[in-house]
Amino acid sequence: MNALWSDAHRFDTWLAVELAACVAMERHGAVPAGTAARVRSLAEGKLDPARILEIEKRTRHDVIAFLTHVEELAGEPARWLHLGMTSSDVLDTTLSLLMSEALDHILAGQQRLNAVLVKRIDEHRKTPMVGRSHGIHAEPVTLGLVLAGFLAEGKRNLSRLEHAQAQLAGTISGAVGTYAHLEPAVEEEALESLDVVRETVPTQVVARDRFAEVFNALALVGAGVERIALQVRHWQRTEVGEAEEAFGKGQKGSSAMPHKKNPILSENLTGLSRLLRGYAGTALEDIALWHERDISHSSVERVIAPDATTLADFMLARAADLVEGLVFHTEQMRKNLDITRGLIFSEGVLLALVRAGMGRQLAYERVQAAALAARDQGGTLHERLLLDPEIVKQLHKEGIDACFDLDHHLRHVGAIIDRAISAGGEGG
Amino acid sequence: MNALWSDAHRFDTWLAVELAACVAMERHGAVPAGTAARVRSLAEGKLDPARILEIEKRTRHDVIAFLTHVEELAGEPARWLHLGMTSSDVLDTTLSLLMSEALDHILAGQQRLNAVLVKRIDEHRKTPMVGRSHGIHAEPVTLGLVLAGFLAEGKRNLSRLEHAQAQLAGTISGAVGTYAHLEPAVEEEALESLDVVRETVPTQVVARDRFAEVFNALALVGAGVERIALQVRHWQRTEVGEAEEAFGKGQKGSSAMPHKKNPILSENLTGLSRLLRGYAGTALEDIALWHERDISHSSVERVIAPDATTLADFMLARAADLVEGLVFHTEQMRKNLDITRGLIFSEGVLLALVRAGMGRQLAYERVQAAALAARDQGGTLHERLLLDPEIVKQLHKEGIDACFDLDHHLRHVGAIIDRAISAGGEGG
Amino acid sequence: MNALWSDAHRFDTWLAVELAACVAMERHGAVPAGTAARVRSLAEGKLDPARILEIEKRTRHDVIAFLTHVEELAGEPARWLHLGMTSSDVLDTTLSLLMSEALDHILAGQQRLNAVLVKRIDEHRKTPMVGRSHGIHAEPVTLGLVLAGFLAEGKRNLSRLEHAQAQLAGTISGAVGTYAHLEPAVEEEALESLDVVRETVPTQVVARDRFAEVFNALALVGAGVERIALQVRHWQRTEVGEAEEAFGKGQKGSSAMPHKKNPILSENLTGLSRLLRGYAGTALEDIALWHERDISHSSVERVIAPDATTLADFMLARAADLVEGLVFHTEQMRKNLDITRGLIFSEGVLLALVRAGMGRQLAYERVQAAALAARDQGGTLHERLLLDPEIVKQLHKEGIDACFDLDHHLRHVGAIIDRAISAGGEGG
Amino acid sequence: MNALWSDAHRFDTWLAVELAACVAMERHGAVPAGTAARVRSLAEGKLDPARILEIEKRTRHDVIAFLTHVEELAGEPARWLHLGMTSSDVLDTTLSLLMSEALDHILAGQQRLNAVLVKRIDEHRKTPMVGRSHGIHAEPVTLGLVLAGFLAEGKRNLSRLEHAQAQLAGTISGAVGTYAHLEPAVEEEALESLDVVRETVPTQVVARDRFAEVFNALALVGAGVERIALQVRHWQRTEVGEAEEAFGKGQKGSSAMPHKKNPILSENLTGLSRLLRGYAGTALEDIALWHERDISHSSVERVIAPDATTLADFMLARAADLVEGLVFHTEQMRKNLDITRGLIFSEGVLLALVRAGMGRQLAYERVQAAALAARDQGGTLHERLLLDPEIVKQLHKEGIDACFDLDHHLRHVGAIIDRAISAGGEGG
Repeated sequence: MNALWSDAHRFDTWLAVELAACVAMERHGAVPAGTAARVRSLAEGKLDPARILEIEKRTRHDVIAFLTHVEELAGEPARWLHLGMTSSDVLDTTLSLLMSEALDHILAGQQRLNAVLVKRIDEHRKTPMVGRSHGIHAEPVTLGLVLAGFLAEGKRNLSRLEHAQAQLAGTISGAVGTYAHLEPAVEEEALESLDVVRETVPTQVVARDRFAEVFNALALVGAGVERIALQVRHWQRTEVGEAEEAFGKGQKGSSAMPHKKNPILSENLTGLSRLLRGYAGTALEDIALWHERDISHSSVERVIAPDATTLADFMLARAADLVEGLVFHTEQMRKNLDITRGLIFSEGVLLALVRAGMGRQLAYERVQAAALAARDQGGTLHERLLLDPEIVKQLHKEGIDACFDLDHHLRHVGAIIDRAISAGGEGG
Repeated sequence: MNALWSDAHRFDTWLAVELAACVAMERHGAVPAGTAARVRSLAEGKLDPARILEIEKRTRHDVIAFLTHVEELAGEPARWLHLGMTSSDVLDTTLSLLMSEALDHILAGQQRLNAVLVKRIDEHRKTPMVGRSHGIHAEPVTLGLVLAGFLAEGKRNLSRLEHAQAQLAGTISGAVGTYAHLEPAVEEEALESLDVVRETVPTQVVARDRFAEVFNALALVGAGVERIALQVRHWQRTEVGEAEEAFGKGQKGSSAMPHKKNPILSENLTGLSRLLRGYAGTALEDIALWHERDISHSSVERVIAPDATTLADFMLARAADLVEGLVFHTEQMRKNLDITRGLIFSEGVLLALVRAGMGRQLAYERVQAAALAARDQGGTLHERLLLDPEIVKQLHKEGIDACFDLDHHLRHVGAIIDRAISAGGEGG
Repeated sequence: MNALWSDAHRFDTWLAVELAACVAMERHGAVPAGTAARVRSLAEGKLDPARILEIEKRTRHDVIAFLTHVEELAGEPARWLHLGMTSSDVLDTTLSLLMSEALDHILAGQQRLNAVLVKRIDEHRKTPMVGRSHGIHAEPVTLGLVLAGFLAEGKRNLSRLEHAQAQLAGTISGAVGTYAHLEPAVEEEALESLDVVRETVPTQVVARDRFAEVFNALALVGAGVERIALQVRHWQRTEVGEAEEAFGKGQKGSSAMPHKKNPILSENLTGLSRLLRGYAGTALEDIALWHERDISHSSVERVIAPDATTLADFMLARAADLVEGLVFHTEQMRKNLDITRGLIFSEGVLLALVRAGMGRQLAYERVQAAALAARDQGGTLHERLLLDPEIVKQLHKEGIDACFDLDHHLRHVGAIIDRAISAGGEGG
Repeated sequence: MNALWSDAHRFDTWLAVELAACVAMERHGAVPAGTAARVRSLAEGKLDPARILEIEKRTRHDVIAFLTHVEELAGEPARWLHLGMTSSDVLDTTLSLLMSEALDHILAGQQRLNAVLVKRIDEHRKTPMVGRSHGIHAEPVTLGLVLAGFLAEGKRNLSRLEHAQAQLAGTISGAVGTYAHLEPAVEEEALESLDVVRETVPTQVVARDRFAEVFNALALVGAGVERIALQVRHWQRTEVGEAEEAFGKGQKGSSAMPHKKNPILSENLTGLSRLLRGYAGTALEDIALWHERDISHSSVERVIAPDATTLADFMLARAADLVEGLVFHTEQMRKNLDITRGLIFSEGVLLALVRAGMGRQLAYERVQAAALAARDQGGTLHERLLLDPEIVKQLHKEGIDACFDLDHHLRHVGAIIDRAISAGGEGG
């Protein structure tokens, strides 16, 4: 990503855009045949970013500085470059190309994360653990099922990234976007050779909602990673102990407390997701420019285009490593399932009573009474239920036993996981 | 929109969800046949929101209060409702249904705005006006072309709204989303009858990235409206005077200054777009919930779901009215085209000189000299150019004249407008 | 708060502002003596909000509609109201008055929360519990100390609210704020009687940075509440069990799972804090208005002024109730202190070894070895340390014992708590 | 700013913090006398950032890597550093020191901007220009008055920066902030020597609301600059032409249009203010950490602490240069005052009629009629008023003439400007 957003790569892409336009102009007789080839042979791969920045200090105009430098390298033919074009033709087409290139990396990163999730899901399809709502033990789930939720979201984020990437457009239409000094066919051919779609209505610049959609998609990607990271942090809590980040050889957890293993990768990812949210909000302010264009978006994009894409790319890579390396403590998961001494099966009992004919309100109250007794006075829910003659009358001991059968409880989990693995990115 | 987000409509939708699930359960033998029909006949259209809120004060649980009230109305059969379900099954399926309903309105609003834009574009395809970059006169455009830019963005926003709407999912999967106490087929049939897709991996709740995408799309819609509003505000400036908001009979512009006509609708829209940006940022924080779910998203959504959709709907309606009613001062547009006394044609001269063989740097300097002379000392650019013997030698008077031909300048505008009108929402 | 932001109270305040200005104008001979008294006797307490809104539908101007209604009530003398003033004089002075009134409530709410914290701190100054960094057990703290951190932040938020409230200014300066049609002395006397400071440089409106600072302060208040709420949610986790929200009689935790007590108040507060962050960002966009003013801020403030202040007020009240009602499980805190079998005392051992002359790196490695052994293979850290001859040689058994003394560990906690209780809002 | 946030300066400050703590520990007998002096002589000014980063790759812990490097340089005595401390003691105290240092620069920048404003205000106290509300000509103001509004806001921002800076606190309290392994007096003396206040209730870390307040203040500073930049952009519009950014020798406005002078500095500042808003929102999410601390804030601050302070510093410097260099076209201001042919004096006429005894509604209608006639049919308002016999009857020609007296209109402007120049930062 650093290379992608380097001055060198940016200037190289500018040259590619200028040459693509020049080739098309040659074809349409607007500039002498052979111009692009001659400039290419003398300038391609030879641009000196430092020199361009030096010229820019004088001209205070980046594209003019660039063209001046190209003329230094390629001489007279270079004077034909940029004919009828405006700076934004170069800058915005380049921005879309670079953003799209960055999104290729990010898409690959999300795909790798998804693939790692599939691998870990397959390992733990049936590993039971307690499901928690509000941080409170609710009913059993499996580890694979939890990871499948992240996978499904990751696939939706792929779809969002792709939708956003498809919006990235270039333009070669000249001042105020009217093709007054060049032909639309030049743009069409040049953009096709660069493999970027055409801005429908250029206004000198490419419409900024296109970029804002990308930053929104990145914020969603970040939030998807944050959800995983938050889960890991909860699992790694001392009292929970169900999973741990892999801990490198030689790594030290705390300068003061030698025993600590902290989920710092996950905490780091949590923080980074906040940055992506901030960038998305900022990008939304760039959309309503003055008239055909103002340049207020530029100082913003110079920061957030590299920062947001680099962060998103980094986050996905780190999240994939994190998930791949996670150490799961399945025995501890089992222990935690029993912490409430059976309370997590209370709903099944409630429903069994209702099905057996007890009114819902009454059933709720009796099961709650047994549950709170188990919770506050000890014993298991199973034992407490057996002490309630009305419940025993309705369900018999066999019926009560059945409510505590983990396999039965989790019988549909495999189907949900299969849905996540086979799902596309949209809708269901 | 007020009706859509009313307590009454929400509770009606809850009942619809419960009944859809009940019908499916009947089919699978989980509840007695005829239950749904009996509850429907006694409760549908008869729910008393005030009564439910009263019960909720005691139970502090909205869905339990609702079910209690339904039982008040429908008696014993109502005890079979909600069997094996959890509150979120009702709440989240309803939220997706209501959001989708709201998006139907918003999509219609964006479509109406787009249609109004097409109408005004057609009226003013060829109405020339000056294009401005950085607020400075640049080169000519047409009014229709400017509006076409808004249309193209409006179509992209349609595409975003549709992508987001397609993500809205429901679930009927019970506590922690495992279908432990009901069958996946019940969900499948119930959601199909409600016409909402199924959450791939329910975790008791529907994943919140789905809703965040909607709020992001609304923020983009808002920014698209803001871009139009900003344009109107600029056009209506006293010094510019190219367009005005329609001014109602009896309307007063200022309590102090009787002559004023202020673009307050547009200013109002500008402000509202900021609110939508804020809501989008807030929604992104709702995604990473604890474990299977926490309920922190709920207090947020209770505010932003109605507020953001109502605002977006209102903004689109107002923007359509605004564009429809805009009074264009085409004569003033003509006058403004001449303010710079021809400077806006300078690029054509520059390019003609380059094409005639003059070096770009030299041509730039000579045209800039003539332009600054015209700007600072008076006269037109045309006159100033004729005073430069080198320029006259290269272009002759005819060549100079040709550079100031407005029709030639705007020859491609029609094609761009056609692109906008025929465009779909994605990519080009 | 609902009353504060009602139409009725807003119109009453408009009248108060008009009358305050009128009184001052009388004193300066600008309007006939007795005007204010006559209008007051006929209109004060008699305004009909519905009638004003009805007139506004026709005039599309709120203040003109208001003045028309006042003239309906008070006849001819009312024609002297508003003389030389502009709508913003009424609207902005009123907004500052209402915001300041709202901040009075919010300040009282923060003070009540702080007072409740002091009470609970005093109860639990010495109640030991484990301190956690990264969610991992670190070293002991006390419950009172944790609450003292919230108190100190609450006091800083008082200071921020007060700084922001002091910025709320009014103006009575007429169009574009130049006092062209009334005297500055009128403003001075009127604002003094209304008890609001004067805008230094009115530009027709009060500068919007003043309001943005308030919304920022509210977002900080919200984050302070969020920090408390997050803590409660962690404490109430099933595995932690150190505290619980008070659970009302008749309240139901879950429609499906009868045994559950969920920290929903805290989760609710967590969500609301996100809304306050969003509003703060929105308010920052209102500052840079066009020239002397545009009205884009107005549609924003109509939403966020009541919403943000009402939410903040509600959050503080709920947070105070929450803290007041928190049920602490001090036995469970004790149990949790022992979960790591002494690991939380490892740093003391490390430091004792260093002080006894062992190199830091070596000491770190030996304590880590003992700690990881205790963690992974069982036994207490104390026992593991006694198995390391080098450690025993350095510290002897007595030295090792001393490292596990809880009272010694917490000897400075009382002093920190005293600092929090005696602290002002700024700096230390 | 780059130097301030360099690795080198950060590590130097870490060493300063460690040494300040060490000196205090020596005084309290916790470490051998002379330790700090020996480490200082061997390590101060000799730290090798590259070496520290290399060690960190292995230890994955920055402070441990740093201490390892200090031990490489200073040998055995360095083992006494950090005794009883935790990493956060070093990191957070350093962050507050660096942020405070950055705020010193930013405060100086705001002061310079304010001073430049005072200078330009003094030049143009009485330069008349038209005041605009809603972008529409309203009534006259002076250029100095407009700038005075920016000055008053600049002073309020000084006050906010100072309030925020006063919140920056350090801590040397060890793990979970309890001083279990060092004495509070060590912290007190060390922080005093470093000139930073003490965190009231350290929880291992310094409370993050302190930093969030700084980022909020920076966002307000940015919005204050944005307000100036927006004004310049409006003034420089082709149709307005009242001011221009200074244009450097050799600078090129447009690669395509040789005549253009664009307000790109102001547009650039407009964009940067959006970034500061984004960072403020992000910082607010850092406040509610888990229990005694989690490290999610760290990855955020690593980005936004340098970025936000560097941007704010840059913006203030550029804004000061911008204001200092602004070329004002006072003749154009005069011309623009006349564009509406006297309409901007309509309110004075309205009020004169009311004072002369005409009912307000009637007066409003008659002046509006004359105003709209002048606007739409030509002639000046003055001429149109003379055509209305009722108005002439009430005011006579002299009375009408008096309403168009610019000096009278602006008679209070000097007093407002004096208020701004003498104002402090708070309240009025």
